[in-house]
This record gives sequence, structure tokens and C-alpha cells, in this order.
Amino acid sequence: MTKSIDSNTSLADHFLVVRQQSVALCAPLRPEDYVVQPYPDVSPPKWHLGHVTWFFENFILAEYVDGYTPYDTALNWFFNSYYESQGPRITRSNRGNMTRPELSTILDYRRHVDERIAELLASDHREIIRIRELVELGCHHEQQHQELLLTDIKYILGTNPFFPAYTDEPVTTETQAAYQGEYLKVETGLHTIGHEGSGFCWDNELSVHQVYLEDFRLATSLVANGDYLRFMRDGGYERFELWQMEGIEWARSLEVKAPLYWVQDESGKWLHYQLGGGLQPVDPSLPVTHVSWYEADAYARWAGARLPTEFEWEAACKVAGGGVRNDQNWSDRTNFQPLASGDLLGDTWEWTNSAYLPYPRYPRPEGALGEYNGKFMVNQMVLRGGSCATPQSHARVSYRNFFQTDKRWQFTGIRLAWDGLS
Amino acid sequence: MTKSIDSNTSLADHFLVVRQQSVALCAPLRPEDYVVQPYPDVSPPKWHLGHVTWFFENFILAEYVDGYTPYDTALNWFFNSYYESQGPRITRSNRGNMTRPELSTILDYRRHVDERIAELLASDHREIIRIRELVELGCHHEQQHQELLLTDIKYILGTNPFFPAYTDEPVTTETQAAYQGEYLKVETGLHTIGHEGSGFCWDNELSVHQVYLEDFRLATSLVANGDYLRFMRDGGYERFELWQMEGIEWARSLEVKAPLYWVQDESGKWLHYQLGGGLQPVDPSLPVTHVSWYEADAYARWAGARLPTEFEWEAACKVAGGGVRNDQNWSDRTNFQPLASGDLLGDTWEWTNSAYLPYPRYPRPEGALGEYNGKFMVNQMVLRGGSCATPQSHARVSYRNFFQTDKRWQFTGIRLAWDGLS
Amino acid sequence: MTKSIDSNTSLADHFLVVRQQSVALCAPLRPEDYVVQPYPDVSPPKWHLGHVTWFFENFILAEYVDGYTPYDTALNWFFNSYYESQGPRITRSNRGNMTRPELSTILDYRRHVDERIAELLASDHREIIRIRELVELGCHHEQQHQELLLTDIKYILGTNPFFPAYTDEPVTTETQAAYQGEYLKVETGLHTIGHEGSGFCWDNELSVHQVYLEDFRLATSLVANGDYLRFMRDGGYERFELWQMEGIEWARSLEVKAPLYWVQDESGKWLHYQLGGGLQPVDPSLPVTHVSWYEADAYARWAGARLPTEFEWEAACKVAGGGVRNDQNWSDRTNFQPLASGDLLGDTWEWTNSAYLPYPRYPRPEGALGEYNGKFMVNQMVLRGGSCATPQSHARVSYRNFFQTDKRWQFTGIRLAWDGLS
Amino acid sequence: MTKSIDSNTSLADHFLVVRQQSVALCAPLRPEDYVVQPYPDVSPPKWHLGHVTWFFENFILAEYVDGYTPYDTALNWFFNSYYESQGPRITRSNRGNMTRPELSTILDYRRHVDERIAELLASDHREIIRIRELVELGCHHEQQHQELLLTDIKYILGTNPFFPAYTDEPVTTETQAAYQGEYLKVETGLHTIGHEGSGFCWDNELSVHQVYLEDFRLATSLVANGDYLRFMRDGGYERFELWQMEGIEWARSLEVKAPLYWVQDESGKWLHYQLGGGLQPVDPSLPVTHVSWYEADAYARWAGARLPTEFEWEAACKVAGGGVRNDQNWSDRTNFQPLASGDLLGDTWEWTNSAYLPYPRYPRPEGALGEYNGKFMVNQMVLRGGSCATPQSHARVSYRNFFQTDKRWQFTGIRLAWDGLS
Repeated sequence: MTKSIDSNTSLADHFLVVRQQSVALCAPLRPEDYVVQPYPDVSPPKWHLGHVTWFFENFILAEYVDGYTPYDTALNWFFNSYYESQGPRITRSNRGNMTRPELSTILDYRRHVDERIAELLASDHREIIRIRELVELGCHHEQQHQELLLTDIKYILGTNPFFPAYTDEPVTTETQAAYQGEYLKVETGLHTIGHEGSGFCWDNELSVHQVYLEDFRLATSLVANGDYLRFMRDGGYERFELWQMEGIEWARSLEVKAPLYWVQDESGKWLHYQLGGGLQPVDPSLPVTHVSWYEADAYARWAGARLPTEFEWEAACKVAGGGVRNDQNWSDRTNFQPLASGDLLGDTWEWTNSAYLPYPRYPRPEGALGEYNGKFMVNQMVLRGGSCATPQSHARVSYRNFFQTDKRWQFTGIRLAWDGLS
Repeated sequence: MTKSIDSNTSLADHFLVVRQQSVALCAPLRPEDYVVQPYPDVSPPKWHLGHVTWFFENFILAEYVDGYTPYDTALNWFFNSYYESQGPRITRSNRGNMTRPELSTILDYRRHVDERIAELLASDHREIIRIRELVELGCHHEQQHQELLLTDIKYILGTNPFFPAYTDEPVTTETQAAYQGEYLKVETGLHTIGHEGSGFCWDNELSVHQVYLEDFRLATSLVANGDYLRFMRDGGYERFELWQMEGIEWARSLEVKAPLYWVQDESGKWLHYQLGGGLQPVDPSLPVTHVSWYEADAYARWAGARLPTEFEWEAACKVAGGGVRNDQNWSDRTNFQPLASGDLLGDTWEWTNSAYLPYPRYPRPEGALGEYNGKFMVNQMVLRGGSCATPQSHARVSYRNFFQTDKRWQFTGIRLAWDGLS
Repeated sequence: MTKSIDSNTSLADHFLVVRQQSVALCAPLRPEDYVVQPYPDVSPPKWHLGHVTWFFENFILAEYVDGYTPYDTALNWFFNSYYESQGPRITRSNRGNMTRPELSTILDYRRHVDERIAELLASDHREIIRIRELVELGCHHEQQHQELLLTDIKYILGTNPFFPAYTDEPVTTETQAAYQGEYLKVETGLHTIGHEGSGFCWDNELSVHQVYLEDFRLATSLVANGDYLRFMRDGGYERFELWQMEGIEWARSLEVKAPLYWVQDESGKWLHYQLGGGLQPVDPSLPVTHVSWYEADAYARWAGARLPTEFEWEAACKVAGGGVRNDQNWSDRTNFQPLASGDLLGDTWEWTNSAYLPYPRYPRPEGALGEYNGKFMVNQMVLRGGSCATPQSHARVSYRNFFQTDKRWQFTGIRLAWDGLS
Repeated sequence: MTKSIDSNTSLADHFLVVRQQSVALCAPLRPEDYVVQPYPDVSPPKWHLGHVTWFFENFILAEYVDGYTPYDTALNWFFNSYYESQGPRITRSNRGNMTRPELSTILDYRRHVDERIAELLASDHREIIRIRELVELGCHHEQQHQELLLTDIKYILGTNPFFPAYTDEPVTTETQAAYQGEYLKVETGLHTIGHEGSGFCWDNELSVHQVYLEDFRLATSLVANGDYLRFMRDGGYERFELWQMEGIEWARSLEVKAPLYWVQDESGKWLHYQLGGGLQPVDPSLPVTHVSWYEADAYARWAGARLPTEFEWEAACKVAGGGVRNDQNWSDRTNFQPLASGDLLGDTWEWTNSAYLPYPRYPRPEGALGEYNGKFMVNQMVLRGGSCATPQSHARVSYRNFFQTDKRWQFTGIRLAWDGLS
């Protein structure tokens, strides 16, 4: 995990920018919105603001500042997410019952930690190199939580019967006709997988290794809402032969008949909740999102295709020149809606048919940071690509996101693959 | 249900006093405290503020004001508690996930409804008598919710690890030695049960009827914390022969070993959360509270006594001159803590060994108001007496409260009875 | 509990008759039928055969025979039902997973215990009076389990898609027109409740006491299947105003739309499983059975009536001359089907609107036998009358049966009551 | 799936041998043992005997015999396991409540189907080649169920407090010292994975493909009970850093502290239930079995090793000459206990760190047989090697078994791997 902050921005500045962004993302919220947890996977926004702060305090200030006095030791219990090595913590599903600490306390806590980290970065501490590494790590951690903040806010507002808009910015519409039916083609052979180069990466992107792949094609465009509507109208949710058994049992038991946030009006027309503008008609040209792995897998079988493996995805991305997205395009968007951009990065997280497992010679870190990625390597699937809610500096070709197969509240989407080159 | 507002207070004034009291009870809360539902029986404070308002709008304004335009029809869905006749409603356990309507919207809604009710009361509406009856009923309904507000707030704050105080008013301490070992004695014969006279009562307090009772004694004092600690130290929670089978299975499965809100410090000393002052040492002289029917029943068996029936309780109360409590004493208290007052009304709700069932010739009202009490008459037990959280004008000898046998978040306590006169 | 065996039958003979009857009731079973527990309340038939035997061994032989060697101490763990005082025992819901002890072992166990009890009864043991009391108690206990054997067998066979008949004896049909619309009338005043006289009774039928009742009528006939079909066709299961809230939530969550064992054929005709003959058309003239308290309560409200209290039922029974049923009629039946007999005893258990609570001065026995009835006195309702599956010598006017409000696998039925004499 | 029956055995003979073996495996059972389902994954032995028969009737007789009359169409509903395409079926967890069809009916059903299959094989049916393929497939299917029969019987008897032996054959003991510390070493490069040659294989063993592996070592011996006891005594079940988070939460919530079937006597000595002989002391020299993937994964981390991938396992097996086990050794054993044989096949199924996913160009069959393996390819892990309960002709190097990560009732064990060649 080497330095990735470019030379024009000091780490101290970067730290402040990241920290301010978390608070800025919460600006549209009402006080009530900060507190609740309508679903066990969703954390209250005030919890996110506290947890990322605790990460800096607990892993940097408490470790490296001599005689550091914690802001309030009672907060540890609230803001430790899952680090067994860091002591007891609140039951995850109980986060939404905690009205205290209040938001104002948490904002004070943030200011306190920000100041102390800034002092530490400006100091000549004998372990300044390690501290800088950890601050960079903490910024990446906070960026992950910025994406979770957005998806958790979407759940809180999008399951409220008033469907309040998060932002009034109009939803973008565009056609994606240009990309339909085009493929990235990758030939049989060995391909290099994993993070190369000097920038930051997570431990789970290592070690770099070779994977042997057979000829395949990968769609240049994501599956669109219109495509998915055809699957729905063709009885896709009822046709068991399209599904994994576990998948159709999931759909049946929860009566799932459409992506998350989709509702039908009295005339049968499909609407979906969007952060920008609230409830909107579904635009058939834009990428489908908020689908589970089960749905993505069934859709692909219906379409006569399959999901790519994470290795195919990464190999195709490298063939395509890295998939890096136009900066302007990325930073323009503040309505947090995936576009039919034709890029591999930055619209939806793309379900793959790879289980989240360690790479060969995976370097699991010692101690608490070894809990970060390494203890979730079972019964989850890998997603690739980054979404419209991912901070741009947090997306890259080798990034491995992972969720259980029933999860839909992230901006998850579908990209198809086929055997052979034609 | 005839008029009970005394001649010195107009109904319009009474209405405003009651309405203001609900808002006043919430004054100590932080914005976060209004939203959550840490337990399915506990409703968010902002929900209570809205629901009681909906009751006035839905059953009075919408019924009796020609061309009344609802404040916002979307609110019905939120604030209908359980009236099947009044249309669909939010799943009860989902109330705590609703961040909207915001508190500010609900306070606006309250002001709107208050003004319209005041106008209606001042009008010469042709059904003004029925309207006045319903306004009085709505005030009693709101007073019930004032007690629930306090017990729900106690749950929200008392299960938070910071144990924030609701009020800083010091907890009262006093001795109850004077009452120990004294009895109210009631002789064999027929006793009149049910609400008599011209004041307001609920339907379930009717019809007035005769019950034949055998000689019994009822303790003048409530069971005290010190008594209950002796039961605990004597292995009361493990001695199956003291319990109903359902009761000990409840205690075992939930690992219940003390009343709700009791916690043991490292030295083994018992503390309990109190609205006044937060976490406090348990005072052995004050009444035990926050016990389930199961615990009350087991305690009584341990003590060589039994719980009274609701008929015995009411007969004893009448023998004792009505149990009406000294006004000064009642209104003095704003820390919401039961005292060892020796009164039958106003300290804790007292579990009886009577199931909540209709009285002979019970006059179940037609329509929605028939749902108010009449559809809960199974698998609940009757409590009598009113608690420190009960508005004084809401307590009376014939009042029948009812809860399931495992409920403990109300101010529930224990009064013992014995067969025979000596 | 004084002697009730008539002078023409010795207790030793009575014991053997009762013991043989349990085995005889199992004669129609296949080996597989003895083992399973398709519902937690249903016990495997082989468990019943063992449990009643353990009762005699554990409470009589082990207590009164010097140096008694248990048949196999490992059996205690299996056959203790719920006596906490008698040591650990198998989790109730796990009974149906126990393939051992085998049936053949249990039948050996029965023979062993039968012989030893016979020896003991023939001896001049110094506590022979207490022993005879306990043997009589054990016979009544076994008769209770004979009824449970029949209802559990009915569940095992009646929920199997082959609907195998228990007996091929034809189902009786008859009309009940003669009884329709007739009442037993009881006048206001004090009535004596509880078991009087010298025969056997359970502790819960004591103490004898006075209850004050107001004028009421009780139907001479049970509600018939045809009546209940009218309720069903009138939307009874959907009309919330007819139900207790807990009741309609029960019906909705389990999708209950008819009594237990009723199934509709393709043409919409209702059939029900009967021990005699298997699946049969529902006969509208016979009493409805296998309904929960919730259904009985809703039906009564639909019919403009109510359920009687257990006190009204007993008082009416005494007014009607004791309700004792014609012997011939009772013993004739071996197809275990309720008839429209017009008797108060012996067709269905009749739900009352009385909670199962102790009578005044209830004499709860010391020790294990105090667990028999006394620890179930919460959240159950009383049923009166005895059913077609009740041994005749086990039915009487003061008998109090009790079950939770959702239970339907017993032969439960409905008798209506009304306020006033006309 | 080409023919694999050797030239000395006709398919008709093979069919009869396989069919007789299923019945023979049940010979030690008591009638009661055939019926129960103490755990949802465990099926009643009589269900297995019926289901494998239904497979032959439904997929061969009903398809290929003109005018075939099913033995009893009602049996379809019972014996269809999970084939959505073959119509409705009993809820899996309800199998153990079905006392009918009786065992005797099922044995008649078996004889009927055996005769008709024999007739068909002897006929000159125009599709005889396809029929022979399907009969061979059905035999493999039945052999899978023979293993399940043994593991389900072990669960039924091994969780019964009498711990009845399935067979009295003495348990084998032996030392495994010879194998300790030896490795199979495999060098970096491309390896061929999947079933090659002309014998039978399942669809999921195809297509044959290349996988690039890095240098690794694989232990020649399985982890022994003595090794696992050291892990337990070292606090292995409490040390969170050894576990996947999902794994330690599984162990905590179910209070798992040892492999399935292990119990501690009063002196602290570990015993385990064995089919041969019942409860026995744990032999430290024999392989540990009945562990979940979670436990295997944690053990490997404790031992400073890791689980192999399924590709490493297969590559090492081929390097070692195919892992084929000595016939004599295999067939000798009728006590169904894994040995420290040093073979890769035939002792325990070995958990790998590979998720069960399709191979490249996986040829999912059309129709019902496509449901056989292809619809379970999510959230399961691959096991390799075959166990002491696997029929010998059913084990091979390319065989992919798969179970969820919490399953322990199969004969599952652990083989360690390490990065590098030394």
C-alpha cells in the first residue's frame, strides 16, 4: 500500500477534502434522517459519521500519539463496526435504536479528531511514514463509507411512503443505442490479475498472479432497464429454469418481482425512486440497478449469456485500455444515477460469477487491519467496476467489491459475457 | 360516557390543556429521541404526537365539519394505530423507520387540528352534544398516550448505554415503614363492580354488576424493592415451583433475572434507570416497578400470598373510601417515580389475577370506537390503580388497564392479597 | 380425591381395563404411525404409551416399593413430560425424532409396570390407602392421554395426503332439527360452582364456591357444520369486526379459512378428515368441531350471541339435570365423531369465555402433583363438556379442560349463549 | 456420459447389485428408524428408498415405456426431491411427518420398478442406448443416496441418547505415523482439470480445461483427531482471528465446541458416536471427520497452512498417480469409519477453498436433468475425494461434491496445503 496522493495535493489537504465530503453528503438530510436503520445492512447516517472518525482515532491517534486522551471512551462501543480485536461493540442491528450520542456530539467528535490528525501529520513523529500510510488508508476507508452513506440514505428515503427527494437536480436521460451489441473480445491465454503499480490498493487485490482464460466476449454496455423489463414481461421471475434454486426461493419467499425501489402505479407503469427528484418513471435506456446476484444470474441465463468471472472482467478491462472514465463526466454528476456511458468504471457495480476468495499468496495483514477484508472471504460474490456513488479516486480496474447474493441496496448492475469470440 | 369536565373549566380550555401537556412532556427530548422504536411495543414520540391528533381529525373533524379538507391524507396511513375500519396503515413495527413526516410537520399538524377543533367547539353545530362527547373522549385518549409517551421515552433513554436523564429533578426517597403489614379487609358477600355515577368512563368499565367474593385481605402497601431483592437473593428466578410454566420459560429464554431497567455494577450492587436523574441505586423502601405479570405472580407465591382479582381490588378500594389520592401529592411529582404512598391510586399499575374479559352485558360500541377496547379481550391481564405516569384526571377506581403477561415497560407493580380476614 | 370406583369393579380390575384400553386404541396403527410428531403439540403414540407408564412407575413404584429397581432409568428422560421436580427431560418438540426406545421396548415396559402395580395393590403395604388414591389418579391421567392419543392419531393421519382411515366403521349421520332454537334458561342469582360429592376430581375443580350470575339462555344444541358454513359463506373469516384482533391476525398469518381437517375439492365442495372412513363430505347436521377459540368467538359474534362463561355453562348443566349422557349412546360409538345428541356431555369440548384461573381457595397440591394443573393457569381458556374421544368415566359437569386460544386439534366445538331469559 | 460398466458385468446385473445394496444398507434398522427427520437436511431412510425408485420410474419408465401405468401417482408428490419441472412436491422439512406410504408399500414399489427396468433393458427398444445411459445415471444417483442413507442413519442414531450401534463390527484402529509431514509437491504451470476419458461423469466435471497454478504442497495425510484436539485445547473455537466472521458467528450462536457427534464424559474425555459400535473414545491417530467448512478453514489457519483449492487438489492427485485406492482396503470396511490410509480417495470428503461454480463451457443439460447439479452453483463449497461411505465405483479424481459451509453430517475432513515447494 504505497502512496497514491499526487504531488499537487498534500496528504493533509486530501485528508480534509475527504473529511469535509462526508459531512457535505449529509447536508440535504433532516435531523430525523440521521438516526434510523430500516434494514439491518443499513446504518444510520450519524453512525457512519462517527465510525469513520473512530477509525482515525483508534488506529492512529490512540496508537501513535503519546498520552492521547480519547475524546470519549464510551464512543468506542458505538463506533467499532466489527473489529473483534478492538473490544466489545453494539449489536449491529441495534444501531438504529441509539438516539445518543446526538449528531451534535458526533460533529464535535469529528472536529476534535480532524484537528489532532492535522497536528500529527504536521509533526516530525518518528513513525511519520507509517502514520501517512494509515491516514491514506483511513481516507480510503472513509470513501467506502461515503458510498454506503449514499446507498443507506437512498434506502431510508426510498422506502418512506413520501419518497422525499435527496436532491432536486434533474435526472439525466440519454440514449445508449451506440453501444448496443458491441463486445470487448479477449483471447485464450494467460492474463495478469491483481493490482500492479505504485498506487494504493487493498490487501485483497494482491498478490498479482496469472489466470488462464478461454476466448470470450464482454458486452460494452450494461444491461438497460428496457432489457430488464422484457425479462420481467417474459415471466422471468416465475421461470424456475432460469434461476439458481436458492435464488428462486429467495424471490418467492420475499415476493420479489422487480428491482429494489421499483413500484408500479395503478396503470401498471413502473416507477423507481431516485435520489435526484424522488419517484420517477423508469427510463428504458438507462442501466438497470439495485438487482441481486440472483436476479443478475437469472437475467443472464434468460438472455442466452452468462455473467463474467472477475478475472474475465479485469482482463477485458485491461484490453480495453483500463476502463478509466472521463473525469468531467464523473464529477459532473451529483444526482447519483448510473448512466449508459459505455465505460467499465463508474456506473454500477457489476456482479461477477466469482466467489470472493483470496488470491494466491494473499498477504493478510497482521492485527486489526487483517480483519478489514480477510474475514469476509466466504459466501459472497465479487462485484467490479465502481458505481455512480463511488468517489472517483476510489475506483480502479483491480478493485474487488463483495456482497452476499441477496443484497440489492448498492448500485448493482449487470454486464453480460459469452463464450468464444463470435 | 357523560360529561365529566367540572363547571370551572370549559371543555375548550380542558382540550387545550391536555393538548399542550403532550408537547410539554416532550420538551426534554433531543431531536433524535423522537424517531426511534427500540422495541415493537414502544412507539416513537413523534408518532404519539401525530396519532392523537389524527384521532381528533379523523373521528371529529372529518365526520362533523362539512367539506373538511384533511391536513394531509398521506398522514392517515402513518397515524392510524389499529383501526381496521379506518383503512390501511403502517405495520406497527415499522413506525421507527419513518423519518418523515418530520417533527416540524407534525407540530404544524397539531396546531392546525387544535384550531379547527376550537372553532368547532365554539360553533352552534347541530350535533354539538355528540361533538363535545367525542372531544372529551379524545382528551382521555390523549391522556392514555401521555402515559405511553413517558414509558416509551423511558425505554428509549433507559436502554441507551449513556443512560441520559429525562429530568434532573432529584429522585424522592422516603420510608414506607408505616404501612408495612397492614391490610384492607373485605368480608364475604356481594360487591358492586363497574363504573357508577355521571363521570366519564370507558366502555369496558360497564355494565355495573354484582360479584360474590369470599373474605380476603389486601395489603395497604405495594411490594417494595427491598422485598423484591429478598426474593431475588432467595433464588426466586430459578425456583420453578414458584412460577407458572409459561412464566419460567419466559424468564429462562430471555435470561430475565431482575426487573426491567435494573443493572448490576461490578460490585454486585443493583442500580436502575430513572427518568429523574438517570442511573441510580435501587432504594429498598420504594415500590418495585417494571415487573411482568409472570414475575408478580411468582413473587406473590414466594411471599405466601397471591395476586388479588380485579374484583377484590375494586371492592377493597371502595371499602377504603375510594383510594383517591391527595391532589397535592400527585401533582407535585415531575420525576415520574412511584412512591410508597399507601394510596391505591397513582404509584404503580397493579397486576391482578383477572383476565381481561368483558363484564356482563358489556356495551361494545358500534363502529370504529368498538375497536378501542373490545377487540383486545383475550390473553391479557387486568391492571388496576394508575401509576406515577398517569394523568391524575385519568385515574379512577373502576379503571381497567390491560397488558400481556410479559410486558414490563409500563410502571407495573405488585400488591398482595390473602384468603380470609386474619 | 376420594374413591370413585364403583363397588362392582375392584381398583385392580379398573387399572387393567384402563391400561389395556390404551394399547387397544393403537391397534389400527402401522409401525410408522407410532413415531412422528408433525406438530409440536402432537406427541408420538409410542411416547404416550411410555409416558403414562412412567407416571405409575415414577410416582408410585419408585416412591412406595422398597428397593424398587427402575425398568430402565434412561427412560425417565424420555417420558417425563414437564415435571421440573422430576429432573431433566427431552425437549418437547424433539419427541418425534426419537426412534428409540422402540415400540417393543415400551410394550415390555408397560407389562413390567402393570405387573408390579398389580402386586402392590394386592399387598398389605402400610400406605395402601395413599397408593390406591394414586393408582386412581394415574388411571385418570391415562384416560386423559387416551383422548390425546386419539386426537394426535387424527392429526398424524389427517394431515397425510393419503388420508388413511383409522377405522372403517361408517360415519353416523342424523338430523338435529329437534334441538334447534331451544334454550336452557338460568335465572339471576348465586350458583354453586365446583366439584361436589365423593367421586374423583382434579384439584382445579376445587374449592366449591358461589358465583353470582345474571339471567341468561344457553343453546341446547351445538353449532352445526351447516351453521358454520353459512358463517364462512358470509365472509366470516374476513370481517374483522367479528374478531378479536389477535384472532384475525392468527387467521390471516396462517391463512385459516375453515376448521382444521377441512379441504375443498375441485368443485368447491367441503370435505373433512374423519377417523372413521377418512376423507368424507361435511355433514351440515352434525356439530362443527376442530375450531379454535378465536373462531368460536368470532362465530358467536356473527350469530348475534356470545360464548358462555364456564360458570354459566356449569350452572345451566346443573339446571338441566346434570347433562349426563345416555350410556348406550356413548359406548356405541367407536368412530369418534361428535353427534347432534342434545346432551351437554360427550360430543365436543365447548369453548367458554372464561380464562383458566384458580378457583377461590384453590388447593394446589404440594410437590410434583402440584405441577399437574396449577402451573398452566395463564393465557389459556376453559373448555367444558367432554368430547366423543373422552372416556365416559372421565367426563363430568365440573370438569375443566383448558387450551390456548389457537388450538384446534382437540374435538372442540361451540355452544352459544345470550343475555336474558327471552 | 459414456458407458462405464466394465465388460464383465452387464448393466442389468449392475443395476440389480446397486438396487440390492440400498436395501441391504437398511437391514440393521428398526421399523421406527425408517421414518424420522431429526434435522431438515436428513431424510427418512424410507424416503431415500422411495426417491431413488421414483427417479427410475419417472425419468425412464414413464418416458420410454409406451402406455406405462405408474405404480401409484400419489407417490410422485412424496418422492420428487426438488425437480421443479416434475410438478409439486412435499415440503422438504415435512418428509419426517409422513408415516404413509409405509415401508412395506415402498418395498413393493421397488420390486415393481426393478422388474420393469429389467424388462426394458432386455428389450429391443428403439432408444435402448439412451435408456442404458439413463439407467447408468440412475445407478450413480442411487449410489449418491446410499452415502446419504448412511450419513442420515448416523444422524438418527447418533443424536439418540441411547447411541445405538448400527453395526457391531469393531472399530479399526491403526497408526498413521508413516504419513506425517510428507507432501505431494506440484510445480507452477498449467494443469488440466475436469473429467477425461470414456467413463461416466456428472455434467459438473466438464468441460476439461486448463488452470494455472503456482508451486504448492499438499499433505499426504488427513488432519487427525489428535491434531484437532490440540486446536481445541489451544482455544481454537474462541480465537476469532482464526475464523471467517461468518464462521465464528456460526460457532457462537450454536455453541459449537467440537466436531459433530463428539461428547465429553464427566471426566472431560472426548467420545464420539460411530456407526460401528456406538459411542467410543476418540482415537487420536484417525482422521478427524464431521467438521464444517468453517472449522476446517479455522483449523488450517491455526496450523499455519490453508485449505487447497479444488484445482490444486485435483492436480496433486494426478501427480500422485490418481489417488486410486487399494480395492481390498476399501471393500473390507463395513463399519464406515475413515482410516489414516494415506490415500486421497475414500476416507473423508475434503473441504477445499473453492466455491462450487461452473467450469468454463459447462454443458448444463436441457430439461429436468439440468436441475441435477446446475441449480446449486451458489454459496456452496467444493469437497473432493470421497469418503468411507462412498461406494467405491462412485469415487474418482474429478468428482466434485458440494455442500454449504455449515454442514457437518457428511464424513467431511481436512487436508492441508501450503504455498511453495518447501
